[in-house]
Amino acid sequence: MQHTNIYEMGLDKNPANFTALTPLSYLQRAASVYPNRVAQIHHQNTTTWGETYTRCVRFASALNKAGIHEGDTVSFIAPNIYALFEAHFGVPMSGAVLNAINTRLDAEAIAFILQHAETRILFVDREFAEVASRAIKMLGAQRPRVIHIDDPFYTEGELIGEMDYEAFLATGDADFSPILPQDEWNAITLNYTSGTTGNPKGVVYHHRGAYLNAVSNAVSWNMGEHPVYLWTLPMFHCNGWCFPWTLAATVGTSVSLRHVRADAIYDAIKESKVNHFCGAPIVLNMLNNADAALKAGIEHQVKVMTAGAAPPASVIEGMENMGFSVTHVYGLTETYGPCVVCAWHEEWDEKTLTERARLKARQGVKSPMQEGLMIANPDTLEPVPQDGTTMGEIFIRGNLVMKGYLKNPRASEEAFAGGWFHTGDLAVWHPDGYIEIKDRSKDIIISGGENISSIEVEDVLYRHPEVSEAAVVARPDEKWGETPCAFVSVKPGSQVTEQEIIQFCRDNMAHFKAPKTIVFGELPKTSTGKIQKFVLRDQVKTL
Amino acid sequence: MQHTNIYEMGLDKNPANFTALTPLSYLQRAASVYPNRVAQIHHQNTTTWGETYTRCVRFASALNKAGIHEGDTVSFIAPNIYALFEAHFGVPMSGAVLNAINTRLDAEAIAFILQHAETRILFVDREFAEVASRAIKMLGAQRPRVIHIDDPFYTEGELIGEMDYEAFLATGDADFSPILPQDEWNAITLNYTSGTTGNPKGVVYHHRGAYLNAVSNAVSWNMGEHPVYLWTLPMFHCNGWCFPWTLAATVGTSVSLRHVRADAIYDAIKESKVNHFCGAPIVLNMLNNADAALKAGIEHQVKVMTAGAAPPASVIEGMENMGFSVTHVYGLTETYGPCVVCAWHEEWDEKTLTERARLKARQGVKSPMQEGLMIANPDTLEPVPQDGTTMGEIFIRGNLVMKGYLKNPRASEEAFAGGWFHTGDLAVWHPDGYIEIKDRSKDIIISGGENISSIEVEDVLYRHPEVSEAAVVARPDEKWGETPCAFVSVKPGSQVTEQEIIQFCRDNMAHFKAPKTIVFGELPKTSTGKIQKFVLRDQVKTL
Repeated sequence: MQHTNIYEMGLDKNPANFTALTPLSYLQRAASVYPNRVAQIHHQNTTTWGETYTRCVRFASALNKAGIHEGDTVSFIAPNIYALFEAHFGVPMSGAVLNAINTRLDAEAIAFILQHAETRILFVDREFAEVASRAIKMLGAQRPRVIHIDDPFYTEGELIGEMDYEAFLATGDADFSPILPQDEWNAITLNYTSGTTGNPKGVVYHHRGAYLNAVSNAVSWNMGEHPVYLWTLPMFHCNGWCFPWTLAATVGTSVSLRHVRADAIYDAIKESKVNHFCGAPIVLNMLNNADAALKAGIEHQVKVMTAGAAPPASVIEGMENMGFSVTHVYGLTETYGPCVVCAWHEEWDEKTLTERARLKARQGVKSPMQEGLMIANPDTLEPVPQDGTTMGEIFIRGNLVMKGYLKNPRASEEAFAGGWFHTGDLAVWHPDGYIEIKDRSKDIIISGGENISSIEVEDVLYRHPEVSEAAVVARPDEKWGETPCAFVSVKPGSQVTEQEIIQFCRDNMAHFKAPKTIVFGELPKTSTGKIQKFVLRDQVKTL
Repeated sequence: MQHTNIYEMGLDKNPANFTALTPLSYLQRAASVYPNRVAQIHHQNTTTWGETYTRCVRFASALNKAGIHEGDTVSFIAPNIYALFEAHFGVPMSGAVLNAINTRLDAEAIAFILQHAETRILFVDREFAEVASRAIKMLGAQRPRVIHIDDPFYTEGELIGEMDYEAFLATGDADFSPILPQDEWNAITLNYTSGTTGNPKGVVYHHRGAYLNAVSNAVSWNMGEHPVYLWTLPMFHCNGWCFPWTLAATVGTSVSLRHVRADAIYDAIKESKVNHFCGAPIVLNMLNNADAALKAGIEHQVKVMTAGAAPPASVIEGMENMGFSVTHVYGLTETYGPCVVCAWHEEWDEKTLTERARLKARQGVKSPMQEGLMIANPDTLEPVPQDGTTMGEIFIRGNLVMKGYLKNPRASEEAFAGGWFHTGDLAVWHPDGYIEIKDRSKDIIISGGENISSIEVEDVLYRHPEVSEAAVVARPDEKWGETPCAFVSVKPGSQVTEQEIIQFCRDNMAHFKAPKTIVFGELPKTSTGKIQKFVLRDQVKTL
């Protein structure tokens, strides 16, 4: 007998009970409830939520007047200042898609992105005029319109656009009605992966994911209301892990930062009472090693979120001594930034520093609004046992996973094969359900048929008192197939030798895992502070 | 020329990047990340999140084995204890819809609900055996199966079911796979309105709204992680304003409470370190008037959410003296409970108590995840000016508005007419965007052609030092059409006269608004502490 479901009769969606999820709603609410609260601090300039809303509305209107409509791309090459913050609302309010470009890229990479994204208007901060100009020239007749950003607190570089961002805003109407998405699945932003090999891929985010991750950040990090957030993390990196939208949802304050420098960061913490910021471990390391005078005088609790590598014990200790609390997270461009968090348990506070560092080194568990996280066999998608030793690939699914790669259905299909997003990262699953990354698939070194985790070797190297940074890659070897080769930078004045470091490794791990070669020198890094192993892999071929 | 939208090509939903929103995800996460944290406290019994998850899975499995499937209704008549808390997860995990029935209803009303909801299984706590038995008898052959709840800490009443809740759970499998909604629009619960006139209406909630309101509560109330929440608010009331799901999202602790009594509440605050609870102003009043000995010894911050009437200055002051902070909210069964909040501004802390009470008496602004709130002309839906004086009806729209009324398409259509939910409450809109309720539409008294707000008259009455509670309704009058009639309960020992109270009113408001009649005595109330004006309206006819 057919079962009649009484709950499916005459209970459909309508404009009274259904609205497409979009983070633009957070801005509208922040501006209407707290119009006079400070939304943005940029040096001596402050902008309220009411003013920020009006500026974003004008921005959207100006874009529409400039012929920008739904599905068009608006690109930015800018530091973490007002224009890019406002673009996170103003661009989608015009129906268009925001593409924030990594400012460390070379002209060729920028040109590729502008072409692939079919950018209609490009906003360029004066600091990046030179590289942007070269990229634009490469595009020939397909070049976008260019608007420059003339930051009143920065004088270097050039103004290469047809007008300034402020003049562009002035062409918009303050009473323009923002265009809200009809479908929460509509694109809101486009972020290109760093592309260690081949061309970068364009990761598309939608309004639904941006809305949900904004609030997942707030819950996961226990941010409370009105957080004061400093932009140490680039907004071109997964839209600043979605924090522009989180700040609207929590009615917080966005503190701009053009250059990531210890003095500027400590000044902002003290003067603007910053209580939240994100950064790669290298940023924490820099803060930790700063002058005692800079560090003195912080009276309030500061929370730091870090990703990209596990924070070493010495960094955690240094941060704790300043009253900073460090949360370790993990994610990818494809997952709106971090969607895995090392959720802390109160009872862990009692443990020793070493033990706390070990626990905090783990990437953790899914964030509050992510749905699925597993470590599984990459071929069968069979979850591995939660034994802390069996390695598998990290798979993620849920509402905090990208819409897909722009104009690249094959890559999207591969990434989503089997109904899970394939991260390419290798990890173990601990008995308590926390994951711990052991390596990128391509960073595994296979020596004499045995797998060697380059991360494991690096962990030992970091424990050597004279090593400041280390990265291990595979070196081709006739006999063993591959052997571990370590690139190491040492502390100032250190006289440590290759042989001493190799011996230290042999004393602290299985001998076959110890590096056979040590190369001393500075390590190449991406704009977000990640060591560029692909550069080292090139170098290793010439050794 | 047709514009090609590159963001709509090959970027569809798939199992890797889309999951239907459901609060069941919060339970799954709480149990997997914090399996050993205490989820529930019931007298000396504590249950962890891991155990709670397993119990809910067993519950869902047992329901399926009992023939319950998607779209079936499972009803509860129970106090705020473990069984009803677990039902908020276990029942939807079986695909069914939870219907928590107001325990203060009479047998006729319960019978009507069981019949209208087509309840398949009814769970009855021993305290409510008598009324439930009478209701069931009225249903004749259509009666549901009955399972009783044998709370080990309660001995009164009777066990009227075929088995106990615990025995029922034991029939389920711990390795059952919970049934997650394929569509987030699917029904999750059914809540009947109190029905001051006519039959109650069945308000249907969906998984999407429950998921969003759970986290909207946490953000709106700044709950932080691991809140300890006491059940002073009935779970049969809008599913306890969605707080069972909020507690899963924040991995908090649910502290049971069978009877709302000052000693039990203060004990729970002190012993279980309760830091959040909700309640009608009458509950706050009771706590405020409790013995000093009970009130002493609370060292931690406690947050209280209240709705139903504005908290009077004396209550706010008493609460503040104990270190309690009171948040005023507003909502209806149709909006998942409160979806309007008197969001506080730090600068208001500096104001006088009178001024703070005046600000806090306002219902406020839309909650973080509600979309639209306006005061408008009920005929034209034209918003009224934000002048603090023009009255209009409160309209709400967004994702925190019900799916509709069960089997009542006409009522749903009326409620959603024009794309906004019609609350039936009358309010003004202040220049800062905060709304303030002036009356229910039907509570307006029309005297000599002038509108009199019964709330305005009550406010004045409450200011009289000897008045403890007051309610004003219209009394039919040959000359004026209607005149205000006040029902008043006075403080113990008071000798105040009718004439003194009328004079006090005339001294404090326009004379035509002052009540013409005062009736002394206890006021009739609903189970949630709301004064039942419809009872008074009946009484007034016989005066």
